[in-house]
Parts: sequence; structure tokens; C-alpha cells
Amino acid sequence: MDNNQSTLDSVFHALADPTRRAVIQQLGRGSATVSELAEPFDMALPSFMKHIGVLESSGLIGSKKVGRVRTCKIKQKTLADAETWINEQRALWEGRIDRLAEYVENNLSKESS
Amino acid sequence: MDNNQSTLDSVFHALADPTRRAVIQQLGRGSATVSELAEPFDMALPSFMKHIGVLESSGLIGSKKVGRVRTCKIKQKTLADAETWINEQRALWEGRIDRLAEYVENNLSKESS
Repeated sequence: MDNNQSTLDSVFHALADPTRRAVIQQLGRGSATVSELAEPFDMALPSFMKHIGVLESSGLIGSKKVGRVRTCKIKQKTLADAETWINEQRALWEGRIDRLAEYVENNLSKESS
Repeated sequence: MDNNQSTLDSVFHALADPTRRAVIQQLGRGSATVSELAEPFDMALPSFMKHIGVLESSGLIGSKKVGRVRTCKIKQKTLADAETWINEQRALWEGRIDRLAEYVENNLSKESS
């Protein structure tokens, strides 16, 4: 498996959880400490830290510890990779629809001529 | 968990696997039978069918059996939901960058006046 494939595996896996998606959403508004991020969730800190770990190892977020405070930020590039993959699928699909429309159009104009 | 959240869970989970992404990619080019889809993979059919099952229950693909032949097609709407979620995150992030740029610009023009 090449690097890009294993990145997409871990990015999509990281996004497949509502807590982790909410963290990404929150970090889109700006960097935040782990305590700030954990605050809205009714979850023990070790469980929450596991989600942070999954997000960090997927490359979707980065974190830095100063003293006892760990601050997280989003890594936009990784989310962009997932977006690119989905966009490519849409381009394939839309290309097919375009070719189909062209085919129908050509055949209709042949019929009417 | 609302419906939309559980859909995103299963869609991103379905996309977190290279075989399943390859199937989506192939179906973007047009409908195909399970045998056609399985052909490029060095995988036992029951294992491959599990991947098809994950894709189908996520709503990313649909399938129909006629006689002994099962034909699959992509469901573009579901992939679009995942794309929308990622786009929203980018909009959040880009909005933040725009506001930051505006702030810096305002302060630079104050300094130079």
C-alpha cells in the first residue's frame, strides 16, 4: 500500500466518528487546548485523549504541550487530501454524465434531421 | 446520534479502506457486476462481498440481482454528503483566515496613516 493510500485510510477512519468530527469542526474556528475541546463532551478524559490520538496520528491535527497544557490545531493539508479524493470521484462521475448527455444530444439531432 | 451523523460515520468508515475506495472509483466509470468489480483484486469472493456489503449499507452504492448476476452502481448523493461536510470545514477555516487577513490589513493601514 502506498503512502497516499494509507493516509487516506487513516484520515477517513478518523472522520468516521462524531466526537472526532466535532473536534475538527471546533478547531476550524481556531486552536484550542485539550480541556477546551473536551468540555462539550460527557466523556472521561482518557477516552477523549484516545480520540485526540487518532486525529493526531491521521495527520488531521497537530498538538504542542507547554507545561501541563496541550494545545491542538487543525492541519488543513490533510483534510484537503480527503477532499481531493472525493472531488476526483465526482469529476469521474460528472464526466460520464456529460458524455452520456452528449451521446443523447447527438442522437436526438440525427433523428430530427 | 441523529441520522446525518450516523450516515457520515458509516460513509467515512466505508471510505477508510483501499479496496472499497477502488470499487467506488471503478463504479464512477459506470455500473458493473460484482465479478467485474472483484476481478482486479487477489481476494476470496466472500471477503470481497463483505466490502460490497459495507459499501451498500453505507448508502455509497446500490445493487440489484438478476438471476445469478449482481450489478452495482454508485449512489452519488451519499458521496456528496461526505463532500459537503468536508467543504463546510474548509469554509470555516477559510473564513477564519479571511478575518485574520482583514485584521492585519486594518492594523497595517492604521500604522501607515
